[in-house]
Amino acid sequence: MVSEFRTTRCVEFPDTDMAGIVHFSQFFVFMEAAEHAFLRSVGTSVFTEWNGDRIGWPRVSASCEYLSPARFEDELDIHLKVVRKGEKSMTYAFTFWLGERLVARGQLRSVCCVCNVGEKMRSIPIPEFIANQITAAPAEEGDDGAES
Amino acid sequence: MVSEFRTTRCVEFPDTDMAGIVHFSQFFVFMEAAEHAFLRSVGTSVFTEWNGDRIGWPRVSASCEYLSPARFEDELDIHLKVVRKGEKSMTYAFTFWLGERLVARGQLRSVCCVCNVGEKMRSIPIPEFIANQITAAPAEEGDDGAES
Amino acid sequence: MVSEFRTTRCVEFPDTDMAGIVHFSQFFVFMEAAEHAFLRSVGTSVFTEWNGDRIGWPRVSASCEYLSPARFEDELDIHLKVVRKGEKSMTYAFTFWLGERLVARGQLRSVCCVCNVGEKMRSIPIPEFIANQITAAPAEEGDDGAES
Amino acid sequence: MVSEFRTTRCVEFPDTDMAGIVHFSQFFVFMEAAEHAFLRSVGTSVFTEWNGDRIGWPRVSASCEYLSPARFEDELDIHLKVVRKGEKSMTYAFTFWLGERLVARGQLRSVCCVCNVGEKMRSIPIPEFIANQITAAPAEEGDDGAES
Repeated sequence: MVSEFRTTRCVEFPDTDMAGIVHFSQFFVFMEAAEHAFLRSVGTSVFTEWNGDRIGWPRVSASCEYLSPARFEDELDIHLKVVRKGEKSMTYAFTFWLGERLVARGQLRSVCCVCNVGEKMRSIPIPEFIANQITAAPAEEGDDGAES
Repeated sequence: MVSEFRTTRCVEFPDTDMAGIVHFSQFFVFMEAAEHAFLRSVGTSVFTEWNGDRIGWPRVSASCEYLSPARFEDELDIHLKVVRKGEKSMTYAFTFWLGERLVARGQLRSVCCVCNVGEKMRSIPIPEFIANQITAAPAEEGDDGAES
Repeated sequence: MVSEFRTTRCVEFPDTDMAGIVHFSQFFVFMEAAEHAFLRSVGTSVFTEWNGDRIGWPRVSASCEYLSPARFEDELDIHLKVVRKGEKSMTYAFTFWLGERLVARGQLRSVCCVCNVGEKMRSIPIPEFIANQITAAPAEEGDDGAES
Repeated sequence: MVSEFRTTRCVEFPDTDMAGIVHFSQFFVFMEAAEHAFLRSVGTSVFTEWNGDRIGWPRVSASCEYLSPARFEDELDIHLKVVRKGEKSMTYAFTFWLGERLVARGQLRSVCCVCNVGEKMRSIPIPEFIANQITAAPAEEGDDGAES
């Protein structure tokens, strides 16, 4: 069972704004790309077929704190940690690093849903073929995800 | 029958890049928004139901020339002109102005398609309730859309 | 002194994703656009010159909760409320509505900084010509901004 | 001297729109990312310091033809070819492939400029340390860049 995932991301030109730094909204795009790569690493996808249904992971909440700027062509190290595995939802914490410097930290909560076309989305327990591969990381001091 | 449409657009922060100007890819987003507002102005939408099918307008081609920069909080005047109405496609020319200054000019060609979920898209003649409302503008000297 | 601001936003095509709804990251773009329109409404801009310095408002944190989906061509009502005015920072709460339906609620915290080109950004007390026009809204039950 | 460059790009979730395919404007972002990777491969960057000036490559024109759709998690092969090296400008042609299937082909023309902060941009001859490394590819039948 895995609870962590690491990836990298090179800051591209349209990720920046006229202040010369990565636009704050773009960190959410980076978090999502890391979440999707994590799901691929355990053999699934953010959209997958299962028992004739289309399973997706719409977001319940998202947050980010910005600690220092990132710039064009910076290579960000992104560290995903599963901070909570609920029956129907996953909560991920992310840290963004440039070498030893912490750039940002964020959190995404996604809920497992049947997302069939033409139907209202409905949450479901995480299917076992996914749930069995993922476990929450042990809480660390200073974590704010453990109690949620 | 209409062949022109005017709208405005205020440049937002994430439209800019670290060069301090509107990112070149964003002009295509602006063209599309003007096209969609134009379709709404004639009583339809870029996605509409018709005879039980979902009608959409995927792009065949897009181009833009950049003549002078636009910056944050600039209010762009956007002028759409129908330069060709084919049996199945529409070609739009766009000019972007800041007052008297021409910022950019571009072109989009969109083809009318049935876009039902789970089916391959297929082009169709533009339905009459749309086609009857739109006509191509008379060609001007220097237009490059008239012959296409 | 003002503490609230209302604006609207029509969902555009590239705001959506393949799930057919507004991409979650896009709500941060909408919040920022509302913040900037609010700053313009009190006679300033998110980038302004003051005493020979360039004043900007980089973000310290951002968060959003997603309650129900928004779709292409939906017209969102956006309500900004100043929930805290610090010496150097502003905290805004946002709610997004489709008619009576609450779509999302979010929060941005921005810090007033000198952002001169080629210098490290440094936070400063909010200049009086801005600070004198804005006041925090009285806290409501359920607000989570009042204590911050 | 090099005249070609190949890279890949995995389609991410926010690259898609509600039609379930890559948004047409996103291909320009992909072209630019390939151009920037190409410039890095010859030891420079789209923004570089040279003789005390900041050298950049603003776009003069951009175009794309869309031949078949690309979808979420598709791995696009992108092929950049220098179709013209002018004294002050570069013209690149791009093809996007999914295996043997041609998805799109596009073109960017960028002009070498001094882009110092607070000055008007001005075009300059491409500095030798860049120009000496790049040569135009021989024209192929069907190329439309050779005569430009």
